[in-house]
Formats: sequence, C-alpha cells, structure tokens
Amino acid sequence: MPTRISLIQGPNLNLLGSREPDFYGREAFDEVNRKIKQRAQELGLEVRILQSNHEGEIVDAIQDARNWADAIIINPAALTHYSYAVRDALTAVRLPAIEVHLSNVHAREEFRRHSVVSPVVVGQIVGFGSLGYLLALEAAQKVVDTSHK
Amino acid sequence: MPTRISLIQGPNLNLLGSREPDFYGREAFDEVNRKIKQRAQELGLEVRILQSNHEGEIVDAIQDARNWADAIIINPAALTHYSYAVRDALTAVRLPAIEVHLSNVHAREEFRRHSVVSPVVVGQIVGFGSLGYLLALEAAQKVVDTSHK
Amino acid sequence: MPTRISLIQGPNLNLLGSREPDFYGREAFDEVNRKIKQRAQELGLEVRILQSNHEGEIVDAIQDARNWADAIIINPAALTHYSYAVRDALTAVRLPAIEVHLSNVHAREEFRRHSVVSPVVVGQIVGFGSLGYLLALEAAQKVVDTSHK
Amino acid sequence: MPTRISLIQGPNLNLLGSREPDFYGREAFDEVNRKIKQRAQELGLEVRILQSNHEGEIVDAIQDARNWADAIIINPAALTHYSYAVRDALTAVRLPAIEVHLSNVHAREEFRRHSVVSPVVVGQIVGFGSLGYLLALEAAQKVVDTSHK
Amino acid sequence: MPTRISLIQGPNLNLLGSREPDFYGREAFDEVNRKIKQRAQELGLEVRILQSNHEGEIVDAIQDARNWADAIIINPAALTHYSYAVRDALTAVRLPAIEVHLSNVHAREEFRRHSVVSPVVVGQIVGFGSLGYLLALEAAQKVVDTSHK
Amino acid sequence: MPTRISLIQGPNLNLLGSREPDFYGREAFDEVNRKIKQRAQELGLEVRILQSNHEGEIVDAIQDARNWADAIIINPAALTHYSYAVRDALTAVRLPAIEVHLSNVHAREEFRRHSVVSPVVVGQIVGFGSLGYLLALEAAQKVVDTSHK
Amino acid sequence: MPTRISLIQGPNLNLLGSREPDFYGREAFDEVNRKIKQRAQELGLEVRILQSNHEGEIVDAIQDARNWADAIIINPAALTHYSYAVRDALTAVRLPAIEVHLSNVHAREEFRRHSVVSPVVVGQIVGFGSLGYLLALEAAQKVVDTSHK
Amino acid sequence: MPTRISLIQGPNLNLLGSREPDFYGREAFDEVNRKIKQRAQELGLEVRILQSNHEGEIVDAIQDARNWADAIIINPAALTHYSYAVRDALTAVRLPAIEVHLSNVHAREEFRRHSVVSPVVVGQIVGFGSLGYLLALEAAQKVVDTSHK
Amino acid sequence: MPTRISLIQGPNLNLLGSREPDFYGREAFDEVNRKIKQRAQELGLEVRILQSNHEGEIVDAIQDARNWADAIIINPAALTHYSYAVRDALTAVRLPAIEVHLSNVHAREEFRRHSVVSPVVVGQIVGFGSLGYLLALEAAQKVVDTSHK
Amino acid sequence: MPTRISLIQGPNLNLLGSREPDFYGREAFDEVNRKIKQRAQELGLEVRILQSNHEGEIVDAIQDARNWADAIIINPAALTHYSYAVRDALTAVRLPAIEVHLSNVHAREEFRRHSVVSPVVVGQIVGFGSLGYLLALEAAQKVVDTSHK
Amino acid sequence: MPTRISLIQGPNLNLLGSREPDFYGREAFDEVNRKIKQRAQELGLEVRILQSNHEGEIVDAIQDARNWADAIIINPAALTHYSYAVRDALTAVRLPAIEVHLSNVHAREEFRRHSVVSPVVVGQIVGFGSLGYLLALEAAQKVVDTSHK
Amino acid sequence: MPTRISLIQGPNLNLLGSREPDFYGREAFDEVNRKIKQRAQELGLEVRILQSNHEGEIVDAIQDARNWADAIIINPAALTHYSYAVRDALTAVRLPAIEVHLSNVHAREEFRRHSVVSPVVVGQIVGFGSLGYLLALEAAQKVVDTSHK
Repeated sequence: MPTRISLIQGPNLNLLGSREPDFYGREAFDEVNRKIKQRAQELGLEVRILQSNHEGEIVDAIQDARNWADAIIINPAALTHYSYAVRDALTAVRLPAIEVHLSNVHAREEFRRHSVVSPVVVGQIVGFGSLGYLLALEAAQKVVDTSHK
Repeated sequence: MPTRISLIQGPNLNLLGSREPDFYGREAFDEVNRKIKQRAQELGLEVRILQSNHEGEIVDAIQDARNWADAIIINPAALTHYSYAVRDALTAVRLPAIEVHLSNVHAREEFRRHSVVSPVVVGQIVGFGSLGYLLALEAAQKVVDTSHK
Repeated sequence: MPTRISLIQGPNLNLLGSREPDFYGREAFDEVNRKIKQRAQELGLEVRILQSNHEGEIVDAIQDARNWADAIIINPAALTHYSYAVRDALTAVRLPAIEVHLSNVHAREEFRRHSVVSPVVVGQIVGFGSLGYLLALEAAQKVVDTSHK
Repeated sequence: MPTRISLIQGPNLNLLGSREPDFYGREAFDEVNRKIKQRAQELGLEVRILQSNHEGEIVDAIQDARNWADAIIINPAALTHYSYAVRDALTAVRLPAIEVHLSNVHAREEFRRHSVVSPVVVGQIVGFGSLGYLLALEAAQKVVDTSHK
Repeated sequence: MPTRISLIQGPNLNLLGSREPDFYGREAFDEVNRKIKQRAQELGLEVRILQSNHEGEIVDAIQDARNWADAIIINPAALTHYSYAVRDALTAVRLPAIEVHLSNVHAREEFRRHSVVSPVVVGQIVGFGSLGYLLALEAAQKVVDTSHK
Repeated sequence: MPTRISLIQGPNLNLLGSREPDFYGREAFDEVNRKIKQRAQELGLEVRILQSNHEGEIVDAIQDARNWADAIIINPAALTHYSYAVRDALTAVRLPAIEVHLSNVHAREEFRRHSVVSPVVVGQIVGFGSLGYLLALEAAQKVVDTSHK
Repeated sequence: MPTRISLIQGPNLNLLGSREPDFYGREAFDEVNRKIKQRAQELGLEVRILQSNHEGEIVDAIQDARNWADAIIINPAALTHYSYAVRDALTAVRLPAIEVHLSNVHAREEFRRHSVVSPVVVGQIVGFGSLGYLLALEAAQKVVDTSHK
Repeated sequence: MPTRISLIQGPNLNLLGSREPDFYGREAFDEVNRKIKQRAQELGLEVRILQSNHEGEIVDAIQDARNWADAIIINPAALTHYSYAVRDALTAVRLPAIEVHLSNVHAREEFRRHSVVSPVVVGQIVGFGSLGYLLALEAAQKVVDTSHK
Repeated sequence: MPTRISLIQGPNLNLLGSREPDFYGREAFDEVNRKIKQRAQELGLEVRILQSNHEGEIVDAIQDARNWADAIIINPAALTHYSYAVRDALTAVRLPAIEVHLSNVHAREEFRRHSVVSPVVVGQIVGFGSLGYLLALEAAQKVVDTSHK
Repeated sequence: MPTRISLIQGPNLNLLGSREPDFYGREAFDEVNRKIKQRAQELGLEVRILQSNHEGEIVDAIQDARNWADAIIINPAALTHYSYAVRDALTAVRLPAIEVHLSNVHAREEFRRHSVVSPVVVGQIVGFGSLGYLLALEAAQKVVDTSHK
Repeated sequence: MPTRISLIQGPNLNLLGSREPDFYGREAFDEVNRKIKQRAQELGLEVRILQSNHEGEIVDAIQDARNWADAIIINPAALTHYSYAVRDALTAVRLPAIEVHLSNVHAREEFRRHSVVSPVVVGQIVGFGSLGYLLALEAAQKVVDTSHK
Repeated sequence: MPTRISLIQGPNLNLLGSREPDFYGREAFDEVNRKIKQRAQELGLEVRILQSNHEGEIVDAIQDARNWADAIIINPAALTHYSYAVRDALTAVRLPAIEVHLSNVHAREEFRRHSVVSPVVVGQIVGFGSLGYLLALEAAQKVVDTSHK
C-alpha cells in the first residue's frame, strides 16, 4: 500500500501567482498543486491536497488525517504565527508532520520568524518556493519508512 | 424554571480520550459529555453542550447563549491563548461565564499560562480533568443564584 | 462607474447597540449599516457590507473584493490584534484598505493598542463611533480617486 | 479511615469580611471556616485549617502535612506571587495540592496573574469566593481516591 | 455661535511639501492650511491654526484653547512619541481633542507606532495626508455637537 | 484625643548607624527612634514604633494598627521590593499610610527603584535619612486632619 | 545670610486647581505659591518660584540657580518621565535638589512610575499635594545645613 | 560544467554518531559525508565538504567558496546562534546559501530557535537528520539553475 | 583562636534526603550536618549550623553572626530568588559570605538561575551536593586568612 | 565658495568646563568654540556655531541650515536620547549630518547608549572631547566633497 | 590508575597577574598552574592544562578529552557568555565538567551573570581566585568516584 | 620615538571593495591599508595592520600590542556584537583603544546597534568609510599625547 500524505495549505495560499510574487513566486496555485501530484506519483505516494482560509477547516482536516494519512505536510501560512489550535491538532493526531513555507520567513517581518507550530512537527523546509512541497514529499516518505521499521 | 447552562468546548476537545492521555486523561469525549449531563440533572440544571474546532462557531454559540442560557461554562482550549474574539463575545453577552481547563495549564508550556479570556470570566477551574466541568456546574448554579438575589 | 467599496466588519460587531454602550455607543447594528448606505449614496459610492464572526469568512470576503471593489473599509474588531490571516489577505489583494475602530482602542486595555493590520492599510480612523465609517467612505473615495490619476 | 485534608490560608485572609468586600465578599473568616468544616463533614473528610501571616509558618504547616494529611488545599494569598519557599515545600512533601483564590486574580492588577505555585499543584479553583474551598474539598477527595487506585 | 476649533501642528510640519514627499505628500504647508480654512468655512466652523517647533509653545497653545475653543485638532508630529507634557496639557484643558497624522505611522519605524497622546484624545485619523485634517474638522463638529446635547 | 501613628520599620533597620553609613547615615537606630518620639510629642502626636526582621510580624503590626492608629508610617526596607503580603495588609486595613526610605533608592541598584507598596500608600518621602520620619509625622498629621473633615 | 531656594515647577502646573482635582487637589496655583512663600518666611528661607511649560526655560532656570541658590526644589511634572536635559542640568549645577510630585505617581499610569530625574536628586517627596513643597523647604534647609558643616 | 557546491559543517558535527543520538541520529560523520557525495554524483553536482570547530576557518571557507562554488550548503551548528561573522561572510560572498540543521531546533532549548544566519540565506531545511543535506543538494541545484536563467 | 563559621540553611533544607533525591541527593539532613562538623574539626574551624523555614530567623541569624563569626556560609534555598532582606542583612554585617547550592540551579527551572544574593557574597559553590558545604569551609578559611593579612 | 557647516550644540553644553570634568574635560565652552573656528579656517570651511537649551531652537536651527549650510555637525547632548523632533528635522532638511559626543556615552549610564538621532546621520564621532568637533569638520568636508562629485 | 583531569582555560587568562588585579588577583598565570599541578599531585590526580584565546582550540581540547580524561575543569572566561560551541562540545563528550570563574561574576557587569555553559556542567565554583581550581580538583575527584560506583 | 599604533581589522574586512559596496564603499582592502599607512607617515606615526577572520587571532594581536604599541585602533566587524573575548583583551592590555566602523551601524539591522566593545574603548568613529581609520589615527595620536602628559 502506498504511503499516504495529507497536504494542507493555509489562508491566502489559493492566491498564489497573483500575490506578492517577489516573495511567493509567479507560479499559479493550480500549477503548484499539479506539480505536487506529479512528484507524488513519481515517488509512489498518494497525496490529498486541501487549502482553506478557515482555521477550523484546517483543524478538521488535520483530525481527519488520522483516518487516512501516514503523514501530514502543512503550510499553515499566516496561522503559523498564532494558531495554537492548529498546533494542538497536530499534536493530538500523532502523525509525523512537516512544516513548509514558500518564502524565507526569516528574511521578512519580525513576526514571521516565530512559529507556534514548529516545536510539534518533525522538521521545516523554508524558502524554496513550490520546490519545498516536493522536497517535503521526499522527506515525508523517508520519515514514514523510518518510523515503520 | 431550572437554571440553564451553555457548555462550550473549543478545538480538538472532540479527540478526548485518544489525545495526549497524560494531560487529558483516558475518558472519551462522549463519556465526559454523558457525565456532564448526568450531573446537571442531579443538580436540577438544564445544559446544552457544543464542541467546535471553528472559532467563529464558538463566538456564534456564545452570542446565542444570550437568548437561552443563564450562564456559560467554556473550555476554550487552544483559543484560550489568542482569541480576543471569544473574549469580546463573552464580554458582549454579559452572562456569567466560567473557564475550565482539563489539564493544569501552568505545569506545561509557557504559552499555556496566559489566557486572554480569564479577565472577563467569573472564575477558573483548572487541572481536574472532566471533574472540572462537574465542579463548574455547581459553581455556575451558585453564581446564577447569587446574582438573582 | 461609481467607486465601489467593500465594507467588512469583524466578530461581535453584530451586537452593536446592546454591547458595552460606553465604548461602542447605543446605535443598533442595522441603524449603523443604514447610515453607511445612505452616506455612500450621497457620495455616489456603491457599498457592500459584510459582518462575520468567522475569521475565514472575513478572509474570503477580502479575497472576493478583488473581483468587485475599488477599496476596502475594514473594522477587524478583535481580529485586529492577532489575525495575520486578515493582514495577509489585505496585502494579497492589493486594494487600498482603511481600518476603522468605533472606540478609541488606545484608551482601553493594553492589548487593544496593537494592530497587526495597521502596517498594511492606507490609514486608520479610530474612536468616533459609527461616524468613523462615514469618514472612511469619504477617505476611500479620495484614495481611489488619487490612485486613479 | 477518612481522607484527611490540610487547608492552609496565607497572609491577611484572617481579615476576610472586612477587607475589600468587592473582591473578597462579605462573609467573615470564621463563617467561611465553619462552612468548610461542615462541607468536609458532609463529604466524610477530616480537615484541619491553618491561617498565618508568616511565610515560615506556612512552610512549616506544609511540611507537617506529610505526617498527617492525604492532600493539601492552599490559598497562598499574597505569597502566591513570590514565595518560592512555599512552592518548594509543596514539591518536597509530595502530597497532591490544590490552589484556591477567592477573587478572580486575572481581573485585577497584573502582578496577581502570576503564580509561582501553580506549576507544582494539581489544579486551581479561582474566583468563586468561599465556594472555592468547598469545591476544592470535593476535588481533593477525587484526586486522593484516584491516586489510591 | 459657530463651533471653534484650535488646530495645532507640531515640529517640522512647516516643512510640508519639501519634506519626505513619499510619506507626507507634495502639498505645501500653506496650501494645506488654506484647505483647512476653506473646509472649516464650508462646515460653518471657526478655526485657528498654529504650528510650532517648540514643545512649550504647543503646551501653551493647548492651554490657551481653554479660553476660546470648543475642540482641539492636534498633529503632535515627533512629540507624539514622548511629550507627556503635551498629553498632560490635553488632559488638563478637558476639551475634546482629535489626533491627526499625515502618514500611516504604523507602516514606518517601530517607534512611530507608539503615541503617548492617543489615550487622552477622542480618536485618531491617520494616514490620509492633508485630508486627515478635513475629516477631523467634520469629526470635531460632530463630537462637540454630541457633547452639547 | 491626639492623632495616633503606628511607625513600622522593616528588616535590618535595627542595624542603623553601623550599616553602610554612606547610604543610611551614622545615626544609631535608638537615636533615630528617640528623635521620632520627640518630634511626635512636639506635634501632639502619639506614636508607637516597631521594627522587625520578620515579614509576618510586619503584617501583624499593620493589621493591629486597625485597632489603635489613625495612620501608618512604614519603611518596609528590603520588603519594599517583593512583599505583596505587606502591600495587601496596607490595603486591607484601610488606614492612610506613608512610605519612607532613608536613602535615595533611585540612585542605587536597579531593583531598589521598584516598590510594590507605593501604589497603595498616600505618598513617599525618600532620601532624607532620619529626617524622612520627622517629615512623615507632619504629613501624617495633615493627611489625618484632612480626611476627618 | 538666609538659605536660598530656587523652586521650579514644570509644564501645566500653572493650571493647578482647575486640572484633575482628584489627583492635584482644588487649591489654585497662586494660593500654593503664596503658601510656599509664607512657609519659607517662617523657616527663614529665601525662595524664588518659577513655572514654565518650556523645557528649555526649566533648564535655563536650573543653570541660573548656580549663581544664586543653595538648593533646588523641582517638580518637573511631565518632564519627569523623559527630560534628560533637565536631569543633565541638575547634575551639571551641582546643587542639592529635591524632587516633588503633588499626586502619588505610583498609583496612576505605569509611565508615571519612572523618573529620569530621581537618580540625580537628593530625595523625593511624593503624593502630599501642596504640602509636599512645604516639607521640601524644610528638607532643603536641613540638606544645605548638613552640607555646610 | 557541473554545478559546484561548498558544503560546510560547524563545530562538533565531527562527533556525529556518538553525540546525543536522540537528537542527531546514530549515523557516523563519515557515513553521512559518503552519502552526500553519492547523492551529489547522482544529481551531477560537484561537492566539497569541510567541517571545522573554528569559526575563523568557517569564515575562510565561505570566502573561498567565491572562487569555486555556485552555492553553499551550511550547517553552522552552535555558531548559528551568535556568529555574525559567519552571517557577514555569507552576505559578502553573494552566493546562494542553504542552512541545514539535523535536529528540529525548534523542539529543543529556547536559544536554538534563534538563528542569526537565517535572514541571509535562501532557505532552511531543519529536522530531517542527514537526509537534510541530500534535500539541500537538490534545492541548491534548483536555486542555481533558476538564477542562471 | 580558630576561625569561626556561621553556616545557615534556608527553607525546606531540613527535608534533605526525602526531598527530590534526583536534585538534592539521598543523604539525610543530619548526616550532612555531621559531615560538615567533622570536616570543620579537621580544618580546625569552629562551626555553628542553623536551618530555618522563616526568612526572619535567617536575617536574625546573619545579624547575630556579627557578634561571633568570622565568615558566613549560606544556602538560602528558595529565598535565593527573592529575599532582598537576606541580601541586605549580608551586606549590613560586613562579613565575608559564601553562597552554596546543592543542586546545579542552572540546569533546572529558569527562575532558579537568578540569585539576588550573589552580588553581595564572595563567591558561589553550586551543584556538588553536600560536598559543596565542605569545599565552602575550605574556601571560607582561605578568605578569612587572606583578609586578616 | 567654501563649504559651509552649521555646528549645533544641545542643552547644558554651555556649561562645559565646569560640568562633570571627568566626563567632559576641563576646557571652557568658549575655548572649544574658538578651537572649532580656528580649525575650520585651517580647513577652508565656514562654520556657524549655535548652542541652546531649548529643543525648539535646535529644531529651528536645523531647519535654517537648509538655507545656508552644506552640512550639519550636531551634538544633541541630552536630546540625543528622546528628541524625535531633532531627528525628524535632520531627516527633513536632507543635509548630511554628523553626530558628535564629547564623552564615551557607551561607558556611562545605560540610557546614554541609545541615540534616536544616529539612524539618520552619516556617522558618529564619540568620546574624544573637543577633538571630536575638529575631526567632524574634516569628515564633513570629505562628505560634502564626495556627494558633490 | 589515577583519575585524569583536563583543565581548560579560555581567552585572556594567560594574562593573569597583570590583568585587572582587583578582579583576578595578583598571582601570575604560571604560578597558578604550578599550584594546580601541586594540588593534583597531593590528591593523586593526573592533570593536563590548556589555555587558549581561540574558541576552536577550546572545542578541540574538549573533544580530545574524550580520549584521555575522566573529567573536565573549565574556565571559559569570556566564552562563558556566548559560546554555544563550547557548550555543545561539553554536552557531546559526555564527561562530567566543572565550571570555574576566578572573580565573582555576579558582582560585575550584568552580562557576566549569564553563562551559556552552566546548564550542561555538574556545578560551578565562582569567586575564589585560583583557589577555585584547587577546590574543583577535589570536586572532580569526588564526582568521578561517585559515578564509577 | 614615534607613537606606535596597532590597527586591527576583524572578519570579512579583507573583502572590502567587493562586499556590499552600498555599505562599505568601493575601495579595495589594499587601497585602504595603503592610505592608512600614508596618513600614518604624514602624522609621524608608526602603524602595524592586521586583519583576521579568526577571533582568537584578534585576541592574540590585542595581547601582543602590549609589547609594542601605544594605542589600538580596532574595527571588530561582526565580532563587535558578541565577542566578549575581544572586549576582555582590550581591557586586559590597558592601552587606549579606538573603535572604528566603516558603515553607520545605527542605520542598518537592529543587532548592529549593540557593541560589546564600546564600553571599554576611548571612543568610536562610525560611518565615514575608510576616512574613519584616518581620523582615528589623528585621535589616537592625541589620546596618547594627552595621557603621556
């Protein structure tokens, strides 16, 4: 059975391509998702993608992952900086999770340097644009494989 | 007419029983709610229970309590630490409210020690697991009785 | 074609009139909205009004404004103090936005003095009750006119 | 053998009834103690009550509890905010302890929000006046029963 | 008798037009004052305008307003951030005051986000260039009218 | 009946004369007390003096003042900086209190600049050595006289 | 030759009597100055009184004191909290200085608790209204006498 | 010509395998370097690896990279948290750099959450053990390719 | 005449042996005191040992040391972190003092890293269990010998 | 035409020579100004010198420099630490400015280490007494020459 | 086989005797080392001494200790306050380590009170000059003996 | 004998000319050193120049200066912000030292505003590019001359 990944994207990421291209690149949201699915296929992974502007839906999605996924890849976007609800959900479901940010959050406003989510995930991939999701798929596979041994 | 209590539970509390049992105990969410209803009945209270992972639904529920309840018992879970929207709702409806936390939030991560809700409620019951809700029912009854005198 | 304004109101503002009248005044929510529409008409503006207790709906509304409005007037209410999601949405849509607060947030609790939204809007109008929305309409018109030159 | 509770009250609590009735209520100290004893009797608990204005006597009393009590209920009053000696005593005796405050300390001066004792007790009951002690008796009984299983 | 407004402008505002036009616009100081007077006339207000680089003269002007004005409109400029003398003067004269800033102080250096004056005025209008004064005239009229009822 | 003053001195003040004479002067403790009594007599005041190294005894003394004194003069010495128990006692007894420090605490270590007691007393006299007690007697007389009118 | 005192009063103190009487009392400025002069005469002191809303004039006055006065009594009012210029002037003239505040600054806004002047004066008299100036005259006499020995 | 990568490892990383295996894994340093070289070969990259316990040698190595490498992969280890010299070197050489940490630094001591290097690199890969270096190779290739377009 | 040492132990140290053995070791309080006396005898020192849970008694004991001891060895236990009364007593008696802590306070809770006493003692010996007292005896002898030369 | 320099000195610098000679040296104010003029002459510079204790006059002088000077040399003295009015004036006139301090402000009180002016000047010369002004003349000449190229 | 100790001394300690004798004493570096060796011999310990001004060499020396020593005694000197590289090395080698400081770092500049090394060593000996090394030898012997049991 | 100056330059300064020319100018490192030597010759000074990326070598160089130089000119570059080892070396050698920075560190990142070295040098020259070294030579000569008087 293939490793299954729940890939969750937070508020405003649906605007990718039109939003601050200096930080987020010019690739459109759909194009990024298409690439994610393609790479997943190449790696033999099954991936489900969700984007929402609603914190509650993100929490629901993390909880739902318990019933299906082996690992979570999450870009909490703005929620990174204050959503202890997302953090608690990640802790509660006890799945390995990987935090991705498209832009280098450490080279922007001070508040973006603080993530309430980082202490409860396996690791972070930050600053590589949409490539970050692809690397995260590879990392997730490795993390799941290792923990299954 | 019996005193009516709106009991509101925040994000991830639906996972009770499976989530971090060292902090939250092993009782399942449904079992806890059953106990709450039973104790309410013993005390001659009417209780309505809501759980949501969505801050907006919690705010809506607090607002709705104006039209029905005499008091609110709330465990805002992760929202405790940042949701000024929940705080403002509690202030706006002008019902006595009691804040409950299952685990002793002061013996965990530093951020859990700060509640934005505490200054606008009547009091807190913290650290006694599901017993906290039962004690809160008793306290709510007393608070409503006193304010009706 | 008239200038079009999306006017967005955050959590608990629907309780206007009954909520802490010392801070927010005694005018009811509907009355305020009626006044806004009347003044918009006088100024030759088209205005759409949304109120929500759900952060996600506010983010959605800001994103939707891209397809219709020339400017945004927003009273983020409690979200002012923590919702980087609202902030990011305002940045992403690249429309001029004006932040309004009914009460003088600088004369209340310390936490109300900090707005995560202020750095990404054009300006703020604070402390004048519902008059603030009317002044904001006038300012929005001016801002749109200027940027169209 | 009945569960035995050592109930310890800190500085100035002897003035109850005459001291700032808006915060502490109008019940006199002796009346509160009488109620505590009555409720203890109803619950089948044995309770010893001590009040002192001397930190050293409070520390001594906590240490003495080792030889007699199954649990401690403590309202450290002003000592809450700086007495690491009280904290260390509570840790040293390894009895379950419950922290009670009569007023909602989170709705008063900033310094009252910080308790050096909270991280080493089982839980807190805050803001319910003398009812807090009665709820604490019930909680203590439950805590002792649970730990004896 | 028309409502009378004392409009006070702080240090360096006399350089308007030549000073950092990105923040303060290209309109000259005299042009702005002319517009203020014209709008005052339209609104049936009487307005006196003072600009000074001297904190002491600003304090004097606020004190003098007691004897003449119904309200104060003040742009304290750099004094905003440290002049408790200006703050105390505003409190002492017990006239409604409105704080105006030409640029969005929240989108500039950190220190500009803190105003020692804001807690003692009615409200703020920030970021709309010279339009801010015109909106403030309208707001002042409303505030005076309301308080006279 | 003469105005009655309870004059309370905190830890280590009994060493006056031998202790750090640069800060505290060379007058011995007994000499200072003698001067206090003499000035009290001149002013027609009755004064009782207590010194203790025990916080609990200071709290007891403040409580006892309720039954005898019209005002309290207190030099809490080191307790100034952390004893919320002393602060609470002063608030609880509702007598006017005056805080005295022999040395200028603002010209010494940083921690001496913060007094937890200052917000609950009438005023402070700081830095004038034993003269401070004598000025405080005069001030206490005036404060009692004024409040009796 | 009598001891000569330069008594300097900062911004807004000229409004005494009309300004916030809860904090500053109802006595008018002139009445306070008359009392000061009378008490000075009783004590055999020569006193010159200056009040200014201008920091620069206060600095000038402190500098001028070098040529005439034996000691300075200063109520820097709002300048207390930020005027390092006043502080440096006090240090530069090397005269003993006494800081007076009419209200208990420690029982008001947080910013009033910090004085940049306190570390360079002999002592403070705080919270006793106009009596503070009279006590300061007595203290100044003593300080000058002592330093002349 | 193949893309050339300078891979630099900071203090104590030579102890890999024996050092705190819970954080850093059980793979030996040489084994990790072997894997890096193998993956580089697979990706058609040329890689040079340096480890040093000396900050100065790390700075030298970064400077040398100017003359040879297309990109830098750096795990500054403990230097991450204070070496502005390493940061300045990375800025000075104007090569794209990628920061790697083996353990999830956000789940350990507080000081490990702050990196002085992060603001001047392209991105970070954190928490995936030696896999992090392999992912970084892939990312570096992509970054170099993109910037060459 | 032998060098005389006053060895003072703060709150809860009497529980040694039963209290948190991971931090404080398993040796009983009496056993530790016996070892101290034995080593003192070996070194030709006279030692008096006091333990108290009362801050006031510790202050008294430090003051009494003036009349007998050549040096003080003090383990202030919890008082380390807030007792400026103990600090002032140590300064006042002008005897060389050595601060001892049984556990490594820097490897425990953050608050234990701050000692208000450290700046006024000669030195600290921290983390070596009861051996710390023995080393302190040797150090005290040396310090006294040196200062007598 | 010679390069023209406006040299501005802040509060209390007129007391040079008599004021704290350990920090400021023993040279009198007039002597320093004489040296400045002489060096200016040697360098072929025209210099105008102003000293004022009034912040407003300093701001005026900076503004006036626009009409005459090529560069500003300023020792803001105490204003360094809080006068955003001086800072804004320096920014507004867009002349190169050099900040001079006679004493090493980093080796004195903590507050002297923070300059609100430093971020808007070209550079600082600190700690060399009156020589600092002479070096600043040389630097100013160089800065003006460079910017004219 | 004798217990083997690696004694490591940080930057500038080679200047002992000539450097700030008030803090560090007048004994020369060589003399101190001679005493260390003599006491080691008396205690039956083997000791190797290293001093370096290079952080990298100190890290190397700590790593080398793995192959030879039973314990480390380290005076990291200035590195104490920032060298996480030294800290990580101490953790990595898993040898018991003792931190020594010659002067009482808590009685000097504020920055000297913070040690990044303290949390990972067994204990500290601070303020006793060169005697500290001798006491540390004794402590090291005890620590090694205890851990070998 | 000519005054001898040891001029020490910290990490990355060897890249001058190619590194961030907006901050550091376009002059090459060798050119700057040539100018330094030329100006030294003009002033009759002997100068030795060292640049190193290794903190340890900088500390060694400062120590070596004792045996040759009359003064030190140091640009610690990145070490400015954390190297207490450099600071201690400067204090230990007791030579007058002058701190130079090429760019205006106060107009860049916040961390560059804090120098751990500034409190122990004579003064700073900041922001004038390579001219700063030349001015420092002049200042050093003056400082040495003055201290030799």
